[in-house]
Amino acid sequence: MIIVGEQINTSRTRIAEAVENRDAQFIVNVAREQVEAGATYIDVNAGTFVGREAEHLCWLVETVQSQLDTPLSLDSPDPVALAEAMKLHKGEPMINSISLEEDRFRALLPVVTSGPCRVVALCMAKTSMPTTVEERVQVGTELIESLTAEGVPIENIYIDPLIQPVSVDTKMGPAALRAIRAIAERFPGVHTICGLSNISFGLPERRLINRTFLALAMGYGLDAAILDPTDRRIMATLLSAEMLLDHDEYCQGFIDAYQNGRLVRA
Amino acid sequence: MIIVGEQINTSRTRIAEAVENRDAQFIVNVAREQVEAGATYIDVNAGTFVGREAEHLCWLVETVQSQLDTPLSLDSPDPVALAEAMKLHKGEPMINSISLEEDRFRALLPVVTSGPCRVVALCMAKTSMPTTVEERVQVGTELIESLTAEGVPIENIYIDPLIQPVSVDTKMGPAALRAIRAIAERFPGVHTICGLSNISFGLPERRLINRTFLALAMGYGLDAAILDPTDRRIMATLLSAEMLLDHDEYCQGFIDAYQNGRLVRA
Repeated sequence: MIIVGEQINTSRTRIAEAVENRDAQFIVNVAREQVEAGATYIDVNAGTFVGREAEHLCWLVETVQSQLDTPLSLDSPDPVALAEAMKLHKGEPMINSISLEEDRFRALLPVVTSGPCRVVALCMAKTSMPTTVEERVQVGTELIESLTAEGVPIENIYIDPLIQPVSVDTKMGPAALRAIRAIAERFPGVHTICGLSNISFGLPERRLINRTFLALAMGYGLDAAILDPTDRRIMATLLSAEMLLDHDEYCQGFIDAYQNGRLVRA
Repeated sequence: MIIVGEQINTSRTRIAEAVENRDAQFIVNVAREQVEAGATYIDVNAGTFVGREAEHLCWLVETVQSQLDTPLSLDSPDPVALAEAMKLHKGEPMINSISLEEDRFRALLPVVTSGPCRVVALCMAKTSMPTTVEERVQVGTELIESLTAEGVPIENIYIDPLIQPVSVDTKMGPAALRAIRAIAERFPGVHTICGLSNISFGLPERRLINRTFLALAMGYGLDAAILDPTDRRIMATLLSAEMLLDHDEYCQGFIDAYQNGRLVRA
């Protein structure tokens, strides 16, 4: 499972303060904790700073990469901020995200083809949000075909089916799950990814819902997730699901996690 | 989700003692707790008493039914014990279980056709245990075809794909999950059921593994499970998975459980 650690996001007060105060050590610590907990990529998001997003995003890239080798997920809807952060990033980042929205697709295409990177492609249509499985699969198909036509290797594409809250419409659970399966089956080699927390918006016990959704989505073929790897319970769910889906040879990853005390609060 | 409460089993020391001492109140309390926690059926199993199993199983049926209306799951590999318990049971029990093993199938057929009941059909072949998905589906298909040919309505059949430990072979997770999906898709109306604890045999943190497996299996179509409904964590997983799979209109079951304090330790 590819894990994108979501903790460095300025929508969190302490992160916003650290960014404003240029508290590099605090940011590096948050990054390091996530790497030690199993993150494959460290997401950096400064989206709350309207007008100063690019500047702060670039500071985050330089700050984390000054001390850690883990690649970053550059997280913004803004093509300009992503382009600037991509220029600074050493190694192969994840770009999060492109979509079919007209301006965004055209503006981001040169960025994602400017060098080796992974790209999260969000199943957002040109002018609307998909609701059904079929709409998601259609948008996902268009994204994959457009990106591969431009030379992006299919293995570098991470389709995000766009998770919507079950509290608004209970059909949103199966819609996301079935879209994950349909896209994974139709396009061998492509990755599927999602953030988890939208699914539980408006409900109590959100962490419980998020981790149950993670297990379900992994069963439907999800192979990457944006989550908090320092949440031991979600990682316990993830590690046990990996094992139960035969992605953990000899159960070694699960047993190691147990022996290292990482399943303690499961 | 159809929940079969598994707690009244003489492999548990306190249950065995209560059965030997004819402690009816203790047994009724264990049954009542499970009903209050959400059990649809109460399993009764006296299999550890070799030679006296039928007698004890019948006592359990009379004892629980003297105070509760919940139907029972009569749990034994022995056709004679099941036949006697079935005669005593008021209402429509679940018979757990028939299989293709030669003597067992022929001996149990008159029992399961003697009156209205649900029947758990275990994917055990005539002389061997299935290991692959295909073997499980083949045995399941034979069971469904044989039982429906004898007049058992397909809606009364609960196929158990036979869960084997991932610690022995990590392929056993996907083998069970894919068999559940294949059988549910091929035979509309049939139920699928399993016990959860075999999957985690030989591993640490078994309850974590069992509840993650439950979520995965529900995603593959499982609609009945034999479990401990007084385990709040497994029920929290179950209730959240029901909601995420669109089996909980307006999220009402989940919200009710939260408001009644049943998700507290989730």
